[in-house]
Amino acid sequence: MSANGLPFDDIRALVRQMPQQDGRARHDARHRQEELTKPSGSLGRLEDIAEWMAAWQGRAPTVNRPVVAVFAANHGIAARGASAFPPEVTRQMVENFAAGGAAINQICATFDLGLKIFDLALDYPTGDITLEPALSERDCAATMAYGMECLAGEPDLLCIGEMGIGNTAVASALFAALFGGTARDWVGPGTGHDSAGMARKTALVQEAIDLHGRHAADPLEALRRLGGREIAAMGGAILAARMQRVPVIVDGFVATAAAAVLYKLAPDTIDHCLFGHVSAEPGHQRALQAMGKVPLLALGMRLGEGTGAALAAAMVKAAVACHNGMATFAQAGVSDRAAD
Amino acid sequence: MSANGLPFDDIRALVRQMPQQDGRARHDARHRQEELTKPSGSLGRLEDIAEWMAAWQGRAPTVNRPVVAVFAANHGIAARGASAFPPEVTRQMVENFAAGGAAINQICATFDLGLKIFDLALDYPTGDITLEPALSERDCAATMAYGMECLAGEPDLLCIGEMGIGNTAVASALFAALFGGTARDWVGPGTGHDSAGMARKTALVQEAIDLHGRHAADPLEALRRLGGREIAAMGGAILAARMQRVPVIVDGFVATAAAAVLYKLAPDTIDHCLFGHVSAEPGHQRALQAMGKVPLLALGMRLGEGTGAALAAAMVKAAVACHNGMATFAQAGVSDRAAD
Repeated sequence: MSANGLPFDDIRALVRQMPQQDGRARHDARHRQEELTKPSGSLGRLEDIAEWMAAWQGRAPTVNRPVVAVFAANHGIAARGASAFPPEVTRQMVENFAAGGAAINQICATFDLGLKIFDLALDYPTGDITLEPALSERDCAATMAYGMECLAGEPDLLCIGEMGIGNTAVASALFAALFGGTARDWVGPGTGHDSAGMARKTALVQEAIDLHGRHAADPLEALRRLGGREIAAMGGAILAARMQRVPVIVDGFVATAAAAVLYKLAPDTIDHCLFGHVSAEPGHQRALQAMGKVPLLALGMRLGEGTGAALAAAMVKAAVACHNGMATFAQAGVSDRAAD
Repeated sequence: MSANGLPFDDIRALVRQMPQQDGRARHDARHRQEELTKPSGSLGRLEDIAEWMAAWQGRAPTVNRPVVAVFAANHGIAARGASAFPPEVTRQMVENFAAGGAAINQICATFDLGLKIFDLALDYPTGDITLEPALSERDCAATMAYGMECLAGEPDLLCIGEMGIGNTAVASALFAALFGGTARDWVGPGTGHDSAGMARKTALVQEAIDLHGRHAADPLEALRRLGGREIAAMGGAILAARMQRVPVIVDGFVATAAAAVLYKLAPDTIDHCLFGHVSAEPGHQRALQAMGKVPLLALGMRLGEGTGAALAAAMVKAAVACHNGMATFAQAGVSDRAAD
């Protein structure tokens, strides 16, 4: 972070400097797609993905060093029963990631994806957003900067996910601040609330919206007041990936909240992002629609951990393998002349 | 095939003898899912897939020897311009498969899936279904038996796909015979017709329906009159997989026509089948709905070759990896007590 100016000004400066897609690389990829041994357009979204990868990588697309970055954090609101699980599960799951026992470990192993876990001051939950802001501006900006470190190994595809008991409540409040609506519009069962738990969670989120909503017209201010450390870190990761021309696959409801903060700064800030899936959390589809994004998969998942993004990464690997590995009509001696 | 009786009677005898799912294996898989370190149900369709694999394999599920079987055939109707591509492309694409240049080669390499290509008398197209039946009963039953050979290597997961210029026209006629409706209800652009091509294709399919429809009340009779060799072979493959307790992933529009023949013999004949994706061919969604099937992926693809099934196989690999590899709450020391 720069020592000059307010920390959030540094984030805004990055957004102003961010690179745009490479139109030539996209054109070249489109041209190659038309020469490959298949009817034009017949690979559907796999063709779109190959072009999108080329446009943001600025060259023929590759998936040689894909990384799934999972950010874990704790939330003051969790102590008030915002989640169906107790707060200590965040740390227990971080240990499970380290031991290789979680779902994301199996999916990364299946598809040869690198996995990096970042735990964010788990012993210091953010402020209880029903009473105070989650983070100071300095803490929030520093956490965004920390999230940028997931680009250190120079991945060529980045999946972002999270773990944090209580974070679907936090994300719901943040979505309401960014896109409008009440707690009822954005709150879902998360890890699995019964009706009493849902009522408690909805009431807590509405308290937070009522307290902070009128101060949250600025997206970064909304993030520090209503977000959490994993959401701030994912926002930083998405932005750093843009600066380094690394395409990003965003996971579920909570990861999408990080993307939504950047979208509200300027919609094209997340043009290098693919939304890997739509989760079973009802607010996720609402959030995607608010940004005009069409998710790749719809498997009824609601786990987080980057699992939906990692499954989508497998599809991206296949798309890029087809793009680079298929023979052209000329190479294969296949007739490309339609009978019509 | 047995020397006794009519060939189709042998097929009907197999259907009567087919094994049912293993309730105990399904129960054990469901029980394990509840103990894994995730909220119950949070892996969505991946949990359903793990249970479905266990139920049909009759044990803890595995994907150690997945195979994609692609059946290629030629059709008399192709000579009349039923496809946007000329008939010789079927053989050219079989050569492309052998050389490793097609989309399915890249997808199989990406996900470590075995690939077997079966070409079915490419020099002898089936009868032009606007004028005569595609196949005799003996030829049709023999082709179904040949399709059963794709189980020879004892795969533990079978994907079925096809290649055959003109075969979306043939499949459209077959769907109309099986589920009712006119050519207009079932015909789509296939590999990419313009409006004149669509009109020609629709007229050809309607001619075939008009000629054979009233003789096609029996699903196997509909198959021999209106199907093609790759459709018959895929029907045999699905049935042989059932006998050997091998779960099947069905690819797109044409592969689904093979499954539909068996569905009409008895709906539970295809309970061991997962429909890998819904294709961009408009009739595919209609056919899936007619059978009450929900596809796994929706990527706007319309290539065939087993490509949609192979992408779905990657999801099945991930589902089974999570099922077998994840730690339980007890193993990982993660609290499984909900706060509600």
